[in-house]
Amino acid sequence: MSEISLHRPFPASAVGHWDFETDVAVIGFGAAGACAAIEAADAGAQVILFERNSGSGGASGLSGGEIYIGGGGGTDAQTAAGFADTTEDFIAYLKAAGGPCVDEAKCELYGREALAHYDWLKAQGVPYRGNYLPGKHIEPTDDSTLIWSGSEAAAPFCDIAKPAPRGHTIQHMGWGGGRPLVDVLEASARAKGVEVVVDARALALIEDEGRIVGVVVRIDNTPRFVRAAKGVVLATGGFVFNEAMRRKHCPDTFKLGDPIGDKDDGTGILLGLGAGGEAIHMDQFFTTCPWTMPESHAYGVFVNIHGQRFINEDCYHGRVSRCAVDQPGGKVYLLLDNAHFVQPMDFARITIAGTGETWDEVEGELGMTAGTLSATMAFYNAHAREGRDPLFDKRAPILVPLDQGPFVALELDFMGSYFSFFTLGGLHTSTEGAVLDRTGAPIPGLFAAGRCTSGLPAWGHGYSSGMSLADCTFFGRQAGRAAGRG
Amino acid sequence: MSEISLHRPFPASAVGHWDFETDVAVIGFGAAGACAAIEAADAGAQVILFERNSGSGGASGLSGGEIYIGGGGGTDAQTAAGFADTTEDFIAYLKAAGGPCVDEAKCELYGREALAHYDWLKAQGVPYRGNYLPGKHIEPTDDSTLIWSGSEAAAPFCDIAKPAPRGHTIQHMGWGGGRPLVDVLEASARAKGVEVVVDARALALIEDEGRIVGVVVRIDNTPRFVRAAKGVVLATGGFVFNEAMRRKHCPDTFKLGDPIGDKDDGTGILLGLGAGGEAIHMDQFFTTCPWTMPESHAYGVFVNIHGQRFINEDCYHGRVSRCAVDQPGGKVYLLLDNAHFVQPMDFARITIAGTGETWDEVEGELGMTAGTLSATMAFYNAHAREGRDPLFDKRAPILVPLDQGPFVALELDFMGSYFSFFTLGGLHTSTEGAVLDRTGAPIPGLFAAGRCTSGLPAWGHGYSSGMSLADCTFFGRQAGRAAGRG
Repeated sequence: MSEISLHRPFPASAVGHWDFETDVAVIGFGAAGACAAIEAADAGAQVILFERNSGSGGASGLSGGEIYIGGGGGTDAQTAAGFADTTEDFIAYLKAAGGPCVDEAKCELYGREALAHYDWLKAQGVPYRGNYLPGKHIEPTDDSTLIWSGSEAAAPFCDIAKPAPRGHTIQHMGWGGGRPLVDVLEASARAKGVEVVVDARALALIEDEGRIVGVVVRIDNTPRFVRAAKGVVLATGGFVFNEAMRRKHCPDTFKLGDPIGDKDDGTGILLGLGAGGEAIHMDQFFTTCPWTMPESHAYGVFVNIHGQRFINEDCYHGRVSRCAVDQPGGKVYLLLDNAHFVQPMDFARITIAGTGETWDEVEGELGMTAGTLSATMAFYNAHAREGRDPLFDKRAPILVPLDQGPFVALELDFMGSYFSFFTLGGLHTSTEGAVLDRTGAPIPGLFAAGRCTSGLPAWGHGYSSGMSLADCTFFGRQAGRAAGRG
Repeated sequence: MSEISLHRPFPASAVGHWDFETDVAVIGFGAAGACAAIEAADAGAQVILFERNSGSGGASGLSGGEIYIGGGGGTDAQTAAGFADTTEDFIAYLKAAGGPCVDEAKCELYGREALAHYDWLKAQGVPYRGNYLPGKHIEPTDDSTLIWSGSEAAAPFCDIAKPAPRGHTIQHMGWGGGRPLVDVLEASARAKGVEVVVDARALALIEDEGRIVGVVVRIDNTPRFVRAAKGVVLATGGFVFNEAMRRKHCPDTFKLGDPIGDKDDGTGILLGLGAGGEAIHMDQFFTTCPWTMPESHAYGVFVNIHGQRFINEDCYHGRVSRCAVDQPGGKVYLLLDNAHFVQPMDFARITIAGTGETWDEVEGELGMTAGTLSATMAFYNAHAREGRDPLFDKRAPILVPLDQGPFVALELDFMGSYFSFFTLGGLHTSTEGAVLDRTGAPIPGLFAAGRCTSGLPAWGHGYSSGMSLADCTFFGRQAGRAAGRG
């Protein structure tokens, strides 16, 4: 009898009895799996969606429900707010955000198709109020549906692509739009006849002469054999909760204390690898600490333990946080003056490390050598008064002198403060969602989407909010459509 | 007929005729392969070593022939020079050098066995003069055989482990000890009856019911089938010359212009992956620019394009270079005063970017904003006069004020200057040299060593000269012995 293993497909010849027979099996019921199921059903395929939890959600359900959308002259919300976002600028931003890890073909395809994708989301029932909320937000605080969600207006991105806000959030009062977003997608999937089987965890793929033809799932502690005539779509998320995988591929995440996800243990990546797939950019991760809340803190200046600045702080909070984590000493400081200081949010676990009537006093309280932090701030303020940041090119309106004491240094400790993080590396897939082997050839019958793949959000330093859900939903659809065609 | 592929083992059942039959087949004739062959032969196995080039060498043959050895109270050369190197300190340094990528078991085993390994190298015929050459050297300039070759005496390493020089180089006049080192190992291997087949490139492994039982090699443009009853040892080097693999796993290396190696195209890693192995830490790479030549340049100060320091410059040249490559803007500057400036070596392609009677003038010539580089140097000099570096903890004797003009800023451009680099990620192996699958289980019959594995030099920021050859030679022996036992 063959062994049932994540690491090696189970031979179809050893299956005694098929417990389920369908065209397409989708594994994982977050946004990627839901979108894959919908498209596969729309392609005329019979679809069963297997989810290890008792209901839909995944990491998508824990998210803000924000999707990165632009180009084509702008969405309704963008144009109403006066942003004419060209496809060229949109694609240029996506590519810059991918940095050295960019998948150019995915950026180009999504860049061209994002407006149609927005229409598709609406057609599934995702509500968009269509209005723009100005300011610096992590998620909309009301039911607005467009915010700035990346580093578009900050250097170097603003010189690469004309800035526009592109964070399109489901209409939903306050934070947490991910849960209602998945609910809408689930309702659409069910309406299209997708069968959902919960409490069903994937144990192994099933192979027949080099083609993936099914999956073994554990239901009621019993292996069940699923025949998927047209294909299997992996949509199981990343590996942030698999410490052994992180140790091997992404050890810098052990600097951080708050993995975010929903049982993201790398199952899909391991299944794909076992079937001959390839995992790429496995060292990449997203992180953010909610230091821009309250919003006035966004006007602060970051220094490392040497008192050196390291980033233009007008970048996206996640890019700033990711660069912070590159700094030595396990912590960074956010410097604020009296005009901009408000008590940090409790959940951020950001503490006050030092205060003073002058920056010299703050420097002394932090135990820094005289002439470090104080010199940095004197230099910063002198140029901020002239409206420029010669070092990091921070721009107005975030660029203001911090020269009205008293002053405060907030400490963002990588382990102690709330630095949430998740992994970005995963299976190498085509723009159609096919899992590719090491030669770039598709593995017949095997598709994947979302964070078990490396996609639009490929590079931790370039992440913008909404990129992962854009990737999950759009390339989830691609994978589902390709699988549904068989 | 089955396909011959790097990516999937060829079935033994499809082999019509065995062109070679042996106990152990070793692939690759650098130091790792040579040591594996010697140990396999000493274990009583019949050994054939296949090399794609027309002779031995590999990346080892291009190296300095330096092997990182210490512990046990010190080698002959260490104790003669007054360094009583304990095993505890040696292991602590190896672990610190592995950083977040460390393989603790390999550090501990090698730490305990290094002195015996040194004796073994001598027994193979490697000559060691046994003397210590003080100073800062990339390789010995005469025929001395012990130099400082890492960051042992620099923070934070000097506070983790008592410093000692551990770079043991074959006795050889001047640079380039790698070639004679491989020659000695080759002679030993041949004397022990190892058969060497050159111009023989590995095309595929051969599998029989989950066990690797041979290899397909191309000789005279014809596939030849090699039966290896006890095992195959992969010793084919890294993937620095495989641009597609670098793009997927190690894209930061595209900042740099000078890959170093000998046809290191990832063959062994791909063969191992195809057989079910796992590759780890694939994003890691070593780099160095020879900025400490002439040696007086080691007294310089590095700043990035913002005029900020970023490292204690008394670290190993490779660690400084690796940290330099993390800096923005594609280049860094090495600042020197008149007392320490000498024309850089031509081959380093380090250029003079600015000069001045004062640091303010240098700053201006570089086009930096007033108060950046000049402030950094005023701060550095003020504290250096007191014998301290409060920011990066650089230590005497390298810590000297640079305050006697005229001054010069040398430019180290990542692409333009000579930044040699090679990859450090590779197959996950046991301390015995077995290639491990994703569950940590050995793949029967398959072994690997050297830079097709992730080993002692796991972390680019912690590399020290001699670590890769220590890993190649010691764990090459381990792999060969395990294969030879069958």
